[in-house]
Amino acid sequence: MTDEACFRDELVAAGHLILTGTDGIYGRSSAYEDIVAAVDRLAVEEAASEGAVPYRFPPVMPRHVFERTGYLSSFPDLIGSVSTFTGDNADHRKLMDVAQSGGDWTELLDAAGVNLCPAACHPLYPTLAGTLPEGGGRYDVAGWCYRHEPSVHAARMQAFRMHELVYVGDPAGAGEHRDRWLQQGVEILASLGLEVETVVANDPFFGRVGRILADNQRAETLKYEIVSPIDSLDRPNAIASSNCHLDHFGQPFGIVTADGEVAHSCCFGFGLDRITLALFRAHGMHPADWPAAPRDRLWP
Amino acid sequence: MTDEACFRDELVAAGHLILTGTDGIYGRSSAYEDIVAAVDRLAVEEAASEGAVPYRFPPVMPRHVFERTGYLSSFPDLIGSVSTFTGDNADHRKLMDVAQSGGDWTELLDAAGVNLCPAACHPLYPTLAGTLPEGGGRYDVAGWCYRHEPSVHAARMQAFRMHELVYVGDPAGAGEHRDRWLQQGVEILASLGLEVETVVANDPFFGRVGRILADNQRAETLKYEIVSPIDSLDRPNAIASSNCHLDHFGQPFGIVTADGEVAHSCCFGFGLDRITLALFRAHGMHPADWPAAPRDRLWP
Repeated sequence: MTDEACFRDELVAAGHLILTGTDGIYGRSSAYEDIVAAVDRLAVEEAASEGAVPYRFPPVMPRHVFERTGYLSSFPDLIGSVSTFTGDNADHRKLMDVAQSGGDWTELLDAAGVNLCPAACHPLYPTLAGTLPEGGGRYDVAGWCYRHEPSVHAARMQAFRMHELVYVGDPAGAGEHRDRWLQQGVEILASLGLEVETVVANDPFFGRVGRILADNQRAETLKYEIVSPIDSLDRPNAIASSNCHLDHFGQPFGIVTADGEVAHSCCFGFGLDRITLALFRAHGMHPADWPAAPRDRLWP
Repeated sequence: MTDEACFRDELVAAGHLILTGTDGIYGRSSAYEDIVAAVDRLAVEEAASEGAVPYRFPPVMPRHVFERTGYLSSFPDLIGSVSTFTGDNADHRKLMDVAQSGGDWTELLDAAGVNLCPAACHPLYPTLAGTLPEGGGRYDVAGWCYRHEPSVHAARMQAFRMHELVYVGDPAGAGEHRDRWLQQGVEILASLGLEVETVVANDPFFGRVGRILADNQRAETLKYEIVSPIDSLDRPNAIASSNCHLDHFGQPFGIVTADGEVAHSCCFGFGLDRITLALFRAHGMHPADWPAAPRDRLWP
């Protein structure tokens, strides 16, 4: 355990995170959830003010959609694939024998046809197949995400919530969306009393090929993160990010602009759990004692 | 496709459910989500009025906890076990070869140590290990649940939300909790203009042995459901249920009453998605046109 687990200890002692015996999987207090809901509402209001269409998707998505997102190629080590039992009575006895003798009973399961969502916006793209309206479309999506990276650091959860403002349209619109939202995101997060900084970033692409993809992503400044201290003051965590996907989703899901071009997309994501953690880090464990400015913004 | 898929078609046409290509996995409209949130708030208020302690858990729970709930033995066909990729660069090339040739790449994954929650209250019990306060404990839990039962019926979703009021204590307290909550549940749901009925029920236990377990559960009247029409007027669906677990959770998780007895437990669960669907069925696709009584109760 590193020093950085100390902040998780503080959150547990205050009752805001409830340990489950698996790192990155926590219960939450109602005070914690009130903050998540308040930040989420800010995102909803901002999204509504620009006419974004709201959709909410469950924590699992169809495997056939997941397979077309490219996630398996780029982030295989983070995925959550769902399997279930499809056998008969005899198979079930065998399953229980393996389970009761402490064996790996999951090997006896079959694919269930769904995956945990790695990002809130992924289930959106297949629903946009076809031709977009003139000027592209703006969408407000939010939901639970899963990434397999167990950690003692509070910021690195396996299950967490993301609220995304998504633009799908032409390349210029995608770039404009990224720039505008980065600025709005910084303003919103700073108004909550958070010390934030915008940095060029890359996704954690897997393996040798991944290193090249990450370098390209940085060189083309496709991804920016807004960072703020959570586990450590020295190494702030991303609490929001803006990601230009080029035609990564437009291509496989057949999304076309009104001009007949393959659509580009860009998302700005608020990390709802990370923003909540950053607020606890910045203002302390008792929201009732937080400064007036963030309180008034969260609970007007 | 049976006639009962008609109601799903209506919900899709109205924009409240968004198809994803996998039955039981849907996007939701913001109007749909507003109803879920309003019903959820009613449950929170009722729970707070009896001093229930609120916790929220993510959609996945530790496998080591799941293994002790008995769910694998009773409902193996409904589970969602999560696996991920743990190999190196060479393994990843093989994974992608299998995936790109349309093979079952999920066979190359390893258990990720987590399962999808089958019920909102399951992650709660291990956190209660030890001795309960005098009179037992009351808890308010809610979250996403997963059950692998793809269906064209709107009511039978693979991913759905449940809000549970849980009592853990002695057998008499558990019975009292069940009876009182069944009555309160009926009152709340009837106040929303739903036609409801209370019926003795059983869980869908698996296989030959399961038939005996289901018969016993009915004979001992351990489970009641509050039903209301969703897909069909003839065969109403459970929209809430009350379940006495005896010491099913107290035993494996080491929960003991102040008197030193193994704790019994009982939960009353509101099916948030099913109640929302029942409201659409009863009052139509436009919440703005619903009768004043349910509107005033949901949005006071």
